[in-house]
Amino acid sequence: MKPNRILIIGGVATGAKAAARARRRDPHAEITIVERGRLLSYAGCGMPYYIQGQVHDFHELMSTPVGVVRDGTFFQNVKDIRVLNLTLAEKIDRARRMVAVVNVTTGEKSELPYDKLVIATGGVPFEPRIEGVNLNRVFRLNLPDDALAIREATEHGNIRRAVLIGGGLIGLETAEALVARGIQVTIVEMLDQLLPAMLDWEVAAFLEKYLRGRGLDIRLNQKVTRLEGDGDGNVARVHTTAEVIEAQMVLIAIGIRPNVQLAKDAGLALGATGAIAVNEQLQTSDPDIYAGGDCVECTHLLTGQKVFVPLGSTANKHGRVIGDNVTGGKSTFPGIVGTTVFKVLDYNLARTGLTEKQARQLGHDVLTALVPGPDRAHYYPTAATLLVKLVADAKSGKLLGAQAIGPGDAVKRIDVLGTALTLGATIDHLPDLDLGYAPPYSSAVDPLAHAANVLRNKRDGLARALTPQQLKTKLDTDDPVVLLDVRTPPERDQMQLRDPRVVWIPLGQLRKRVAEIPRDREIVCYCKVSQRGYEAQRILDGEGFTNVKFLDGGLVAWPYPFGDGNGQAERK
Amino acid sequence: MKPNRILIIGGVATGAKAAARARRRDPHAEITIVERGRLLSYAGCGMPYYIQGQVHDFHELMSTPVGVVRDGTFFQNVKDIRVLNLTLAEKIDRARRMVAVVNVTTGEKSELPYDKLVIATGGVPFEPRIEGVNLNRVFRLNLPDDALAIREATEHGNIRRAVLIGGGLIGLETAEALVARGIQVTIVEMLDQLLPAMLDWEVAAFLEKYLRGRGLDIRLNQKVTRLEGDGDGNVARVHTTAEVIEAQMVLIAIGIRPNVQLAKDAGLALGATGAIAVNEQLQTSDPDIYAGGDCVECTHLLTGQKVFVPLGSTANKHGRVIGDNVTGGKSTFPGIVGTTVFKVLDYNLARTGLTEKQARQLGHDVLTALVPGPDRAHYYPTAATLLVKLVADAKSGKLLGAQAIGPGDAVKRIDVLGTALTLGATIDHLPDLDLGYAPPYSSAVDPLAHAANVLRNKRDGLARALTPQQLKTKLDTDDPVVLLDVRTPPERDQMQLRDPRVVWIPLGQLRKRVAEIPRDREIVCYCKVSQRGYEAQRILDGEGFTNVKFLDGGLVAWPYPFGDGNGQAERK
Repeated sequence: MKPNRILIIGGVATGAKAAARARRRDPHAEITIVERGRLLSYAGCGMPYYIQGQVHDFHELMSTPVGVVRDGTFFQNVKDIRVLNLTLAEKIDRARRMVAVVNVTTGEKSELPYDKLVIATGGVPFEPRIEGVNLNRVFRLNLPDDALAIREATEHGNIRRAVLIGGGLIGLETAEALVARGIQVTIVEMLDQLLPAMLDWEVAAFLEKYLRGRGLDIRLNQKVTRLEGDGDGNVARVHTTAEVIEAQMVLIAIGIRPNVQLAKDAGLALGATGAIAVNEQLQTSDPDIYAGGDCVECTHLLTGQKVFVPLGSTANKHGRVIGDNVTGGKSTFPGIVGTTVFKVLDYNLARTGLTEKQARQLGHDVLTALVPGPDRAHYYPTAATLLVKLVADAKSGKLLGAQAIGPGDAVKRIDVLGTALTLGATIDHLPDLDLGYAPPYSSAVDPLAHAANVLRNKRDGLARALTPQQLKTKLDTDDPVVLLDVRTPPERDQMQLRDPRVVWIPLGQLRKRVAEIPRDREIVCYCKVSQRGYEAQRILDGEGFTNVKFLDGGLVAWPYPFGDGNGQAERK
Repeated sequence: MKPNRILIIGGVATGAKAAARARRRDPHAEITIVERGRLLSYAGCGMPYYIQGQVHDFHELMSTPVGVVRDGTFFQNVKDIRVLNLTLAEKIDRARRMVAVVNVTTGEKSELPYDKLVIATGGVPFEPRIEGVNLNRVFRLNLPDDALAIREATEHGNIRRAVLIGGGLIGLETAEALVARGIQVTIVEMLDQLLPAMLDWEVAAFLEKYLRGRGLDIRLNQKVTRLEGDGDGNVARVHTTAEVIEAQMVLIAIGIRPNVQLAKDAGLALGATGAIAVNEQLQTSDPDIYAGGDCVECTHLLTGQKVFVPLGSTANKHGRVIGDNVTGGKSTFPGIVGTTVFKVLDYNLARTGLTEKQARQLGHDVLTALVPGPDRAHYYPTAATLLVKLVADAKSGKLLGAQAIGPGDAVKRIDVLGTALTLGATIDHLPDLDLGYAPPYSSAVDPLAHAANVLRNKRDGLARALTPQQLKTKLDTDDPVVLLDVRTPPERDQMQLRDPRVVWIPLGQLRKRVAEIPRDREIVCYCKVSQRGYEAQRILDGEGFTNVKFLDGGLVAWPYPFGDGNGQAERK
């Protein structure tokens, strides 16, 4: 029997994984990887940590855990996989099952035959259509050479200020690296919040407060219009719709688009997102051609819609499925739920499913909870604040999504929630989950269970809340709302909302001092995190008050200034 | 309408929670807590950290996150709940709906009426029936006074050596506290492993290796027969079936039993476990009497069997359900899946579901994976080793349980796995989960997904492994097995199995040196974690070998000495 010829275009995540998996399943296949770059099988997601210097040598990003570099020799000797690096695939001839390639060093052209072809061409950064993007020290972060160049510039380039264009994930991860090197960072974002596709506004605002507190300069609602150079061709100034910012370095990080040219030229179907359309087996419209990773679109398991969410984890899953299917297997990749996690300075940020905004756009009537609190037993020394926002469908109770952020352990909660919503859980499932409890790891009632209980209380009519945005609207007008602060005296000394409508009665005195509260006005109770705010609401309900609510998330999650300049919410 | 009289016996976890929840639902109920101790609503699980000194003041364990102590005044003022502490409930008169109580300080007796009664009497430590258990400095760790006494003794008692009787959770958590105070710790365990109810033998052995490496003295297969005092009535020597151990302090920690005397005397039904039998609403056999926390049994959701697993997290869940149901609600507590997590020194330990042993005892034909590896991107500075054991039903593929241990993040994986198996996931669901990936938190293929892939490879016949126990049996005989070490030279310098049957061929040379391997003998391939061991197996399969396996878990998970005295597996 003739060996199966498997040709793989792209050798980073999906391509390298598909090749390795195919080899383990079929010892006799002829497997070839074509990679346009010099390096392959590198951890692109590790590049910000290389720039920061936490990863010393770039080779660590392309080594196995025991330190063996995954280069062409490695693939040949260990995996019996042929690697043609610095080789660009130019054209797929589907009729003849041939791929035309060119060696980018020598210009030599050749053709490679295939029985099964894998397209793993990844993504490319979006480019703004503005003047100056080709000046020196205007970077993108996509390929290893980008990371090498940024690190070189930040180490030896005498850079005092960097402007990041785009308040997205790559920009923020890189911001951490630049801050660590003592560089003043300015982020310019076109929209009114950071991470607009990932977070609801008030969660992004919580992040923004933190970053500003750490010295980052964040300019929202501004569009970069032009990059201006100095006499030597280096970038010197960033012009926006609002101002001009001096900078010795610029990172363009406004997103990634799928690299589909090759597939498109070959007549393969693209999806509505612009990425390559694939079925559950990751087959393209040509059954002998598979595609995966950052160049394809995925099914969102909660909406059924096709989405483009390029991630290293998905790319690796795709590689395994493709490795199975090009060797006669029948594996599938059902889809994603939009889980994204990342670290920026000392904050952990994680989200899964739909934001409230996305859920509403899809027509859901939603229940939400915004719950800050310690991420483990509050008396345990490493306890840290975590803000959880939970979104569920009001009618069915089905969990739709969550966002978690803070110095606390956000990722664990999002991994649990993502698992739960993938498996169809409702808000009633969540508090019953047998999650691990010990003081170093969690509170007896896990923050997720607590947030779900808040949702249940709202659903059942026990709890009634105003979102920070709703309260802010009242505060900004002459609304006669009463703000009932039920915190202790030391807490009040630490931070407070400065507004003449605030009435302060510590919770322990509330039952005795009910007469001080007007019965003809709307009352909004609050405390640090609004657990006592809710309790106060229940006390007043019990006393016959009819228009009492609490402030979702309390003062910790309050995304606005407090009215007296102490805008940074304290954090443990 | 007459107010609902809710009487709660026990004010620690379930009792306090039930009271608070009942109050939030019913502002007019008369709620009374009867607590035999002085303190209430304290975090019992935090006591090891108080002993260690990480929690400075015991009051931190009974304070809210903002530092308000939850004492009787707090409950009265904030919650309008009456607390009778230092009050023992002596008898329940179900016919008259009265509970006879006695003030333990004054001896004064009285009767308290109820409409709904809640029994939350907790658990009491098992006592070994041996001589000397009442000597000075023979401790249990159940009540606040126990913790205060142990801390006092460890701080000022001139204790050089402590013996912990029982290799269970409380013993190990306390061991951490004692080690931190410079005390030599000896653990005496009757059975052949630590944590026999929680871990499979080889996982417990991995923990044991670590603890021995950290200086703990562990004596398995020994039973304590007698405690001997010095002239002053202080414990001085521990006699076991094998030896006599000098010690200035002893902790008896052989488990907890449910405190059911009151319920039993009242004629309430007990379950097969000896704990109070309750239905899903946490009602006892008397519909007006509810019970929860460490005195009741729970349903194990995977087996349907009743189990006794006393945990603070479960107790809190029970409190909320009971608080609902004594105020007219219809909440349920479906059950548990046996999740337990804890920290001992720098190791994190987590488990959920069934161990392999438990699953086999229940008649399951099981698939298992034993997979060590870094818990996050191996190049990220905080990456640490995590050993995962995954257990699934071989026929249905249903996930049955997992154990995770190491300096890496074990708890996150177990929370995810516990969630997945509660919701009925199979091994095919696990690798598809959209878990959060970024280098500071995970590897692109999460350790859980990796372990599930190992199970799939075994199920599909691609991977064939020997467990460490199976290989050890061969090594201890004249079995002509070939041990094929496929690691790199530097790894081999670090540690190796010393056995004449070892053949060493680094993986990168294996394809060329196949001729060196005998075809007529069983081959067991291994590396550090056995990812390359598996790869070597596939290479030899491809070369026509017919009797090749790999060693589950590789050298990192090898629970035995290496034959040359370097028995401690390295860890990052």
